[in-house]
Amino acid sequence: MADASLPLRPKPEETPDAEPASGEGAPAPSKKASKKAAKEKAKAEKAAQQAAQRAAQEKANDAADTAKDRYGRLPETEDLAPVTNLTQLSEDYFEKEVTVIARVDNARMQSAKLAFVMLRQQGKKAQAVIAAVGPISRQMVKWTGAINLNSVVQVTGIVKKPAVPISSATLSHLEIHIEKVYIIAEAAQQIPMQVKDAEKPAPVGGSLEEEPQFDTDGTPIATLKTRLDNRVIDLQTETSQAITWISSGVAQLFAEYMLKSGARWIFSSKLTGSSTEGGSEVFEVKYFKRTAYLAQSPQLHKQICIAGDMNSVFEIGPVFRAEESNTHRHLTEFTGLDFEMTFRHHYHEVLGFAENLLVFILSELKGRYETEIAVIQKSYPKAGDFKLPKDGKALRLNYMDGVTLLKEAGVDVSEQEKFENDFTTAMEKQLGQIIREKYDTDFYVLDKFPMAVRPFYTKPDPEDPRLSNSYDFFMRGEEIMSGAQRIHDANELEASMVAKGVDPKTEGFEDYLAAFRQGCPPHAGGGLGLNRIVMFFLGLPNIRLATLFPRDPQRLRP
Amino acid sequence: MADASLPLRPKPEETPDAEPASGEGAPAPSKKASKKAAKEKAKAEKAAQQAAQRAAQEKANDAADTAKDRYGRLPETEDLAPVTNLTQLSEDYFEKEVTVIARVDNARMQSAKLAFVMLRQQGKKAQAVIAAVGPISRQMVKWTGAINLNSVVQVTGIVKKPAVPISSATLSHLEIHIEKVYIIAEAAQQIPMQVKDAEKPAPVGGSLEEEPQFDTDGTPIATLKTRLDNRVIDLQTETSQAITWISSGVAQLFAEYMLKSGARWIFSSKLTGSSTEGGSEVFEVKYFKRTAYLAQSPQLHKQICIAGDMNSVFEIGPVFRAEESNTHRHLTEFTGLDFEMTFRHHYHEVLGFAENLLVFILSELKGRYETEIAVIQKSYPKAGDFKLPKDGKALRLNYMDGVTLLKEAGVDVSEQEKFENDFTTAMEKQLGQIIREKYDTDFYVLDKFPMAVRPFYTKPDPEDPRLSNSYDFFMRGEEIMSGAQRIHDANELEASMVAKGVDPKTEGFEDYLAAFRQGCPPHAGGGLGLNRIVMFFLGLPNIRLATLFPRDPQRLRP
Repeated sequence: MADASLPLRPKPEETPDAEPASGEGAPAPSKKASKKAAKEKAKAEKAAQQAAQRAAQEKANDAADTAKDRYGRLPETEDLAPVTNLTQLSEDYFEKEVTVIARVDNARMQSAKLAFVMLRQQGKKAQAVIAAVGPISRQMVKWTGAINLNSVVQVTGIVKKPAVPISSATLSHLEIHIEKVYIIAEAAQQIPMQVKDAEKPAPVGGSLEEEPQFDTDGTPIATLKTRLDNRVIDLQTETSQAITWISSGVAQLFAEYMLKSGARWIFSSKLTGSSTEGGSEVFEVKYFKRTAYLAQSPQLHKQICIAGDMNSVFEIGPVFRAEESNTHRHLTEFTGLDFEMTFRHHYHEVLGFAENLLVFILSELKGRYETEIAVIQKSYPKAGDFKLPKDGKALRLNYMDGVTLLKEAGVDVSEQEKFENDFTTAMEKQLGQIIREKYDTDFYVLDKFPMAVRPFYTKPDPEDPRLSNSYDFFMRGEEIMSGAQRIHDANELEASMVAKGVDPKTEGFEDYLAAFRQGCPPHAGGGLGLNRIVMFFLGLPNIRLATLFPRDPQRLRP
Repeated sequence: MADASLPLRPKPEETPDAEPASGEGAPAPSKKASKKAAKEKAKAEKAAQQAAQRAAQEKANDAADTAKDRYGRLPETEDLAPVTNLTQLSEDYFEKEVTVIARVDNARMQSAKLAFVMLRQQGKKAQAVIAAVGPISRQMVKWTGAINLNSVVQVTGIVKKPAVPISSATLSHLEIHIEKVYIIAEAAQQIPMQVKDAEKPAPVGGSLEEEPQFDTDGTPIATLKTRLDNRVIDLQTETSQAITWISSGVAQLFAEYMLKSGARWIFSSKLTGSSTEGGSEVFEVKYFKRTAYLAQSPQLHKQICIAGDMNSVFEIGPVFRAEESNTHRHLTEFTGLDFEMTFRHHYHEVLGFAENLLVFILSELKGRYETEIAVIQKSYPKAGDFKLPKDGKALRLNYMDGVTLLKEAGVDVSEQEKFENDFTTAMEKQLGQIIREKYDTDFYVLDKFPMAVRPFYTKPDPEDPRLSNSYDFFMRGEEIMSGAQRIHDANELEASMVAKGVDPKTEGFEDYLAAFRQGCPPHAGGGLGLNRIVMFFLGLPNIRLATLFPRDPQRLRP
């Protein structure tokens, strides 16, 4: 069985029919002693007496229980039947015996002789039924019907075709007729949230509000806060299971594509000696007798790698932002997918690479995770409707084309036309709508952002200094990547720092500038947010639903 | 060319033969003005005069220079020859024209008509030669011989067989006869360290001392500190290039194996609300108006994922340890390769999985990175001699077998025999030697560590409570992984906390315990150190050599 070292002391409530079976109650106290000590002694005597009675009763029951080896805590045994994945069961298994390990999603007695147990494995459900016929005793049925919800059990039984499909089960076309059932890990009687509470979609807008919300049928919906507080249970839903698989898939597809392209996987340090990318949004760390900072991106380190002759590099790791933003799409810690590479002639070589990378990731997600997407779609209807460009080539517009599209739609873009301000979030979303309608795609690229809205290390457009060789990637009108050609000439970089009001003498910038002073080839790159890709691909209402253990200004647990 | 947006103003020192060619020096100052303003005016006039002269001279030189389009700053052009990797050149290219992009490792004039340039690409070197014959001018030869070292250049030329092999080049059997040479990125004249300084093996023992050290021929060796301070240049050596590839490979092989096994890739948060794994060795983070902590491992989160029905998970990410250890093998931040999975019957299922994982990683490293290992071996002779078990199966001993082996070798193991103390580092190393001699392997596993030396969440051995279901993995007698079966029963876990002096009411443990109270299947896992695997596999003298940007109590840069 699962754990050879489990203590094999059955707790009273687990012992089959531990309560007296024939009306014999506990004996009344022999007499009332006046002293406290006597009272306590009597109490202890009573307990011992009860225990002895219970043991005798158990023994009698055991002897009488024809099914006693068929249920209980999982016994220690060397020979085990092969375990079948619950989700793999199909009509091919009809009339065959299988052993599955699953949670008890629900259990109820239909009568003294019949109980139903809904089994759940990674969010998928199948019904099991136990009837007191043949070797199965009433005690066993009763015990089975009373298993604490969410306990992990091992069930052996025959797969059968149910009289009518079981609409509440994922595997509605079959049921398991229980022959043996053992508890592997018992859940407490009271747990803070049941999986069924988390099975409904998160409240509208992914609100973080704590006010109780209700479903259309009047039943309460667990708030996002309750679900995140009890993330361990929330993760057990079919939807969470599917989302975490897609998150795994994004990382896998990114690594796959980068490695195939010949890029090197790097691991840069997150602890840095200086806050080089904006003082106010960086977390300070007490580092022995001094202060360290948490990297807001691997930007400087990636570029040092390029200057260190590593041609093409990528990193997958945490990115920290001390922003006090409490929105549906901001986190203080998220997973960055970063890349940086040299190019031969023009930064569009890298931009083209990145576009193909994203088209690869998004189309492979659609192909490899069809089942998971269908599951998520039941709760979040947008999950399946993400539109990729039909010809497999990313749509690339210039920033100023975007301004024009918004202007044509009647939006006031006077600030944007001055090359001074970036789009607002509302503008970005509206542009996403316009582009979806006009170009039939939810993924697109804006190139040539105004220099004024980009960081100092961005290469200006040599043909128009108001613009820059930089780009953002969008999904459903929301930004998922920012990237650019970087200035690779040390003098030009220093001048750009000064122009942007950044002091080149700042600690940390010395190493950065030194990397370019020793000669660095032209290069470009970008940084993707894994959580945002998952969120916008699936059309989830909140980034926290696309994050394993989300962190925001209010949340540091679990 | 590489960067269409490069400013095309040649700096004076880059202009071919910018210095007067026929003895015409700069004119003497016209007169000495008594006033400062007049002085400055004169200075400006002089500069203007010089510039005009220089321009005239340049024009004259240009007109006379038959090769003027063949060298200089790389001109903007749309049509480019395909670039060949320097390292791919072979005899097949003899008498063919190639274009390569590389750094100038060294450049010297042999005569006014002949210069040699050692080219370097990702640490590999090939010699190029330029002679003033045919269209090649003396000016071009002179300019080429004076290119600042470490500059990135684009060279077009004919591959030829040299009269004698060039012993200082990696590609000793060929040379490139230069036809065109352009600077893509110019290095400063003075850079803090040359790549050749970093090409020698790090000083004995990987010492962090700053005292100058000398090679056997009396030439100075760059200290490890100098090399790490100038990591961007240190990374350019052939050895560093190879080590960073192997580091990339370890991550790739780990991810490959885990994904193939059906595990899910997770990203747990590094910012946590409580210091759950030992108060003194955790970094504190200022988190808005409260304190957060940096995760010392993803241990608790991995287990919450298992309790959340994620069967098998893995993570690749930074691990933070606020240990004030200044040793050759400790860092304050390293890359952890973590995994956690349920098992069916016995934790040895997981241990066997992990053993096979390591055998896979180490043997694939040997297979896929043969070339890189051979390069590293030139500086660190142990790099190629790592012994894997011959039968492809990991050697597994019990901790107490290790105690016996040491005892037989005359080591005082009285403390260890009492089940109270772990091995010292010296004992571990000695045991590694003994095992290498006896079993002919540098990779092995010790199982069943004493419970007293393991953390509270470790499952005790059900047959001997002095022992535990836990294991360490070793390479060359040094630990690279620690793992165990975890206690999955909430009550047992709480009791173990109390027994180990950990307060279950501590913030953070509440979420942890809650994960088990709702039912969690039996599981086991482990955490590997990527940097240590690289270090011990290659027999490097210091973990900093196996880390991109190492962090220790003294070092937070670059």
